Amino acid sequence: MKKINLVEKLALFEEHWSPKIVAELNGHHVKLAKLKGEFVWHRHDSEDELFLVLEGRLRIELRDGEVSLERGELFIVPKGVEHKPVAREEAHVLLLEPVTTVNTGTVRTGRTVDPGWI
Amino acid sequence: MKKINLVEKLALFEEHWSPKIVAELNGHHVKLAKLKGEFVWHRHDSEDELFLVLEGRLRIELRDGEVSLERGELFIVPKGVEHKPVAREEAHVLLLEPVTTVNTGTVRTGRTVDPGWI
Repeated sequence: MKKINLVEKLALFEEHWSPKIVAELNGHHVKLAKLKGEFVWHRHDSEDELFLVLEGRLRIELRDGEVSLERGELFIVPKGVEHKPVAREEAHVLLLEPVTTVNTGTVRTGRTVDPGWI
Repeated sequence: MKKINLVEKLALFEEHWSPKIVAELNGHHVKLAKLKGEFVWHRHDSEDELFLVLEGRLRIELRDGEVSLERGELFIVPKGVEHKPVAREEAHVLLLEPVTTVNTGTVRTGRTVDPGWI
């Protein structure tokens, strides 16, 4: 039982597209990530995924459109929906997803990472 | 599938201690609340509860201590742990908890509310 300061946690790593776990509740992980550039198209078959932008801007491309998020905006990608996050400049985001979630969803690529706690 | 702007949602209500649902994922609700003053001691027997301070300061009293949260800090109250949120000045918080969660936990009081979507 310890509070988590998001800015302090974000200062502990620099790599992009490598979510770090900061908290766990009810079978979910709260993660922080720094994003820059384009990620890969993927989907999560059985879980919804929450993105909350803490700093910068994030575009989430969908097969039938896209959503542009600024600081203080959140979006939930429903299970099964293909998406590709894109950040022109570095963005800091908070993610919430089940502990079993893989960052690249059903696709295993060179971008797949095993998130650790920070 | 629509993005949620937290500041815009917070501008839609004024009452204290009355969480509003803004999103749902994996059996959980994301809620926003404005807090001021003292809440009641309560616990949630089977669910962890996340508090993220968006504006202001929040103190969460526990039976064996307390945690003081500022903007950008989050805290998870584990299931079964009695807690009492206190905000000297108005604080805005994001809550994450299962859709079944009652704001006063196992205690039904005059402070118990049925959260609606906003």
